[in-house]
Amino acid sequence: MSPDAVTVHGMSTSGNCHKVRLLLEQLGRPYQWVEVDSANGATRTPEYLAKNPNGKVPMLERADGRILVESNAILCWLAEGTPFLPADAWQRAQVLSWLFFEQYSHEPYIAVARFIRGWTPPDSPRRADLPRLVERGGQALAVMEKHLQSADWFTGDAYGVADIALFAYTHCAGDGGFELRKLPRITDWLARVRATPGFIPMPAVSDEVAARLATS
Amino acid sequence: MSPDAVTVHGMSTSGNCHKVRLLLEQLGRPYQWVEVDSANGATRTPEYLAKNPNGKVPMLERADGRILVESNAILCWLAEGTPFLPADAWQRAQVLSWLFFEQYSHEPYIAVARFIRGWTPPDSPRRADLPRLVERGGQALAVMEKHLQSADWFTGDAYGVADIALFAYTHCAGDGGFELRKLPRITDWLARVRATPGFIPMPAVSDEVAARLATS
Repeated sequence: MSPDAVTVHGMSTSGNCHKVRLLLEQLGRPYQWVEVDSANGATRTPEYLAKNPNGKVPMLERADGRILVESNAILCWLAEGTPFLPADAWQRAQVLSWLFFEQYSHEPYIAVARFIRGWTPPDSPRRADLPRLVERGGQALAVMEKHLQSADWFTGDAYGVADIALFAYTHCAGDGGFELRKLPRITDWLARVRATPGFIPMPAVSDEVAARLATS
Repeated sequence: MSPDAVTVHGMSTSGNCHKVRLLLEQLGRPYQWVEVDSANGATRTPEYLAKNPNGKVPMLERADGRILVESNAILCWLAEGTPFLPADAWQRAQVLSWLFFEQYSHEPYIAVARFIRGWTPPDSPRRADLPRLVERGGQALAVMEKHLQSADWFTGDAYGVADIALFAYTHCAGDGGFELRKLPRITDWLARVRATPGFIPMPAVSDEVAARLATS
């Protein structure tokens, strides 16, 4: 195994995990993928917690066993020295700003609404959270729509890690109950992301999840 | 005004804002501080939203009007090229990992529990969230305690931005109902942070907030 080899432990239908796969594909960098059923406790085993005490996916493992967790930190590390992450300190700070926005103001509402609607039973008490999540997630999408009034991308002048991070759960925001057709600039940006070289879509959810999303 | 001058718009008793002030003080870098009463709507005015559409503090403004938001992105920008942020790419990725951990797995529980107990009335319906916040925040503190079994700092071999970010709400976790005395390694680390050169404590909360915290 090459010392540069990386293994990604992830759940394919998780946007946070797909971020990492999408960047690796677009970098043309070889990787191994270990599927982890995060929705059913596979990140809570003693073996997994020994590697990542926070018990989350994705997790990147290097050939020598060193570990890196947190999807957006993994993106930055993989993108270092490539066109996916600007070298200029101010531009880079703006990229980080969007990455923190994504994890604090976007994902906890848009991804969690999708999870509740698709991965919890119809009578789950968590469904009571949905109106609040949709309100807050809508605010995050409005911030993105406003940015796209005067910019084509979130990573400075070109496509890069901030676009990958924000694409992850924006493109499937409909699963969480958000109406993307009311957001024309986001809709156009999603199309631009899908047209980038080496783009691969996130795998489809299982039939069971799809059925739940369709009736939520 | 020097082109390097920075203005920080922040609420002094917010941990996210204090992070920025603490680093600026420790860097010995001059700055202006504009107090923003975030708890009472001052980040929701048209003037503020024109600068930061996400309506949050802290916000850094440069002499030429350029804006940077998200506390941890501001820390990274200010720390670039200083001992507070490692130059090595892998170490830097680990720092980012802790910064994303702080914003995703730590702050939304520990800071929010503090806010609800100190800044909302005793009959606020948000108080029903406290048991869940205390459970999740406790998990974050356990991850930190485990890291400190084999390391003195969160920023690699030395004190730096990941320590500053995690200190912000860990040191006042008691305000949120967490018992730090049960976490000896965190307690020792907090003391090490307080002993770093140029350290300044977060300003005390108002008498009204202090009274509410004391009876929560």
